[in-house]
Amino acid sequence: MAEMAIDYSDIQLARSRIARYWKHPTPVVRWRAFEERTDVSGLRIYVKCENLGPTGSFKLRGALNAVLALSEHEARHGVATHSSGNHGAALAYAARIRGVPVTIVVPKGASRRKTDLIRQWGGTIVECEPTQAGREDALARVVREQGSVAIPPYDWAPVMAGQGTVTDEFLDEIPALDYLLIPVGGGGLISGAAIVARMRRPSIQLIGVEPQGANDTLRSLERGMRVPHPAPMTVADGLKAFVGELTFPIIQKMVDRVVDVTEAEITKMMLQCLEELRMVVEPSSATVFAALTKERLTPGSRVGLILSGGNVDQTLWERLFAS
Amino acid sequence: MAEMAIDYSDIQLARSRIARYWKHPTPVVRWRAFEERTDVSGLRIYVKCENLGPTGSFKLRGALNAVLALSEHEARHGVATHSSGNHGAALAYAARIRGVPVTIVVPKGASRRKTDLIRQWGGTIVECEPTQAGREDALARVVREQGSVAIPPYDWAPVMAGQGTVTDEFLDEIPALDYLLIPVGGGGLISGAAIVARMRRPSIQLIGVEPQGANDTLRSLERGMRVPHPAPMTVADGLKAFVGELTFPIIQKMVDRVVDVTEAEITKMMLQCLEELRMVVEPSSATVFAALTKERLTPGSRVGLILSGGNVDQTLWERLFAS
Repeated sequence: MAEMAIDYSDIQLARSRIARYWKHPTPVVRWRAFEERTDVSGLRIYVKCENLGPTGSFKLRGALNAVLALSEHEARHGVATHSSGNHGAALAYAARIRGVPVTIVVPKGASRRKTDLIRQWGGTIVECEPTQAGREDALARVVREQGSVAIPPYDWAPVMAGQGTVTDEFLDEIPALDYLLIPVGGGGLISGAAIVARMRRPSIQLIGVEPQGANDTLRSLERGMRVPHPAPMTVADGLKAFVGELTFPIIQKMVDRVVDVTEAEITKMMLQCLEELRMVVEPSSATVFAALTKERLTPGSRVGLILSGGNVDQTLWERLFAS
Repeated sequence: MAEMAIDYSDIQLARSRIARYWKHPTPVVRWRAFEERTDVSGLRIYVKCENLGPTGSFKLRGALNAVLALSEHEARHGVATHSSGNHGAALAYAARIRGVPVTIVVPKGASRRKTDLIRQWGGTIVECEPTQAGREDALARVVREQGSVAIPPYDWAPVMAGQGTVTDEFLDEIPALDYLLIPVGGGGLISGAAIVARMRRPSIQLIGVEPQGANDTLRSLERGMRVPHPAPMTVADGLKAFVGELTFPIIQKMVDRVVDVTEAEITKMMLQCLEELRMVVEPSSATVFAALTKERLTPGSRVGLILSGGNVDQTLWERLFAS
């Protein structure tokens, strides 16, 4: 068994770093409408609201930890990444906090909402072809020309440690969680969660959730090795990423199971959460709410859901409300 | 000068009553996108999220306090009210907590979402004609037949005291607020806020906000007496109510000013809040967010906004996203 990329002390260190710039933990609210609707008696459903953080997703935690962990020397020419989503906005915000320049490589056709956020926080945008090769080439060029440090979105120990702080805060507030449901894209959020939970609450059931259209982690677990999805396609664009080299072994060893949900289940749940939670739940997060309705849970359990983000394009709402 | 209907000790008592059943204070979040956009330097905008409470609006506070304040004898035949909105759902929820029956008189054509909530919490619904007289007649009949106690939506001291707990919690978390913006319908929320603020933070600027289409409080303040709006008409249905006999004198004496906003400003702000706050802000609450963009604020101020509720019908979203 390979050693894990991070341990709990990395997450504690990340938490102390982040806390200087982002004071309040994100709120935890109850999903009472679900509790009242379910046949399972005595369930308590707790939602950790990462959508209410400064950039509207948990991604700021990993980006901030990674940027703050750089030495003065490393940080002097700034940071860069490729991202069509929340990681880019988070890195732009984190770099502004550190006071270093930041460039985000963004595939052509990326959502206007996301690029607006990056610009708002002072990030420079470089467009690239919307392929994995196009993204990597463009980022390599930026790093070479600027001397900046590339901060990967998930397969990077300081990023994983930062994402672990979500679950560390969650367990401070609700220590006796019996289940924790977490969306799985590249695996940064769930690997951080697993490291924390196995240390602080070993009995917790950790359940990862993917869209069927990008269920590479589920397939990889079945095969016992990392297997990419042949053609990831889902409204949950934050979950299209291929599970990482560093994150996969942690998931394999420490997560109880990974389940998947359909596109229709995801979009239906976005509308239901808008009504019942009075919050915006982006498609990547709606996966865990959808999975909850299919899981067989023990009566009387305390269930934690990570609402990972709330950045939704207006065009998606238009589509959902028109149908 | 008439004596005020409530004082600060009523609000403290309400808070201790409510706290037994509703443990966590509602979260406070920053509206960072506004802070970054405004020309006024150093503003900090804090949003008190009543949409995240159990019934999705502040109304539960007043209803719960009023129901819990009843003696065993008074409560034995239950409670009733007329409401097309959040007060009805809140009273149903409060009655369930107390374990007494509850009947809500609802005008024909009321939103399905609101009546669903009332039923979900065990309330009996009685339909009536959608006029003030129709509502009052039907409620009088219910009270006569059932022997239940009518709990008015705002012009009732225990309700006003309950609503005051919003601002009491808000000042616990952000003690040095310089401004507080509050929606004004019947005046329950703002009168409670005024009693708290004048005791705990006398220098605060209290600003009430109404829709232009239901600006009876603004007109009443100009005339120095309660004057109903001739034909209240606004998407902010929670604010159509006529300012109360008990609430008006408090507003007159203790609120710095009342301003109004247009229908277009309200609906535009609902979409903006969905994007920037990642939360549902119902039209009645969007008024204060819209007013903020028009107010001249002192640089460096701390500004509080009460996000009073997040119950929005799907049909309204459909309309907003189609236009």
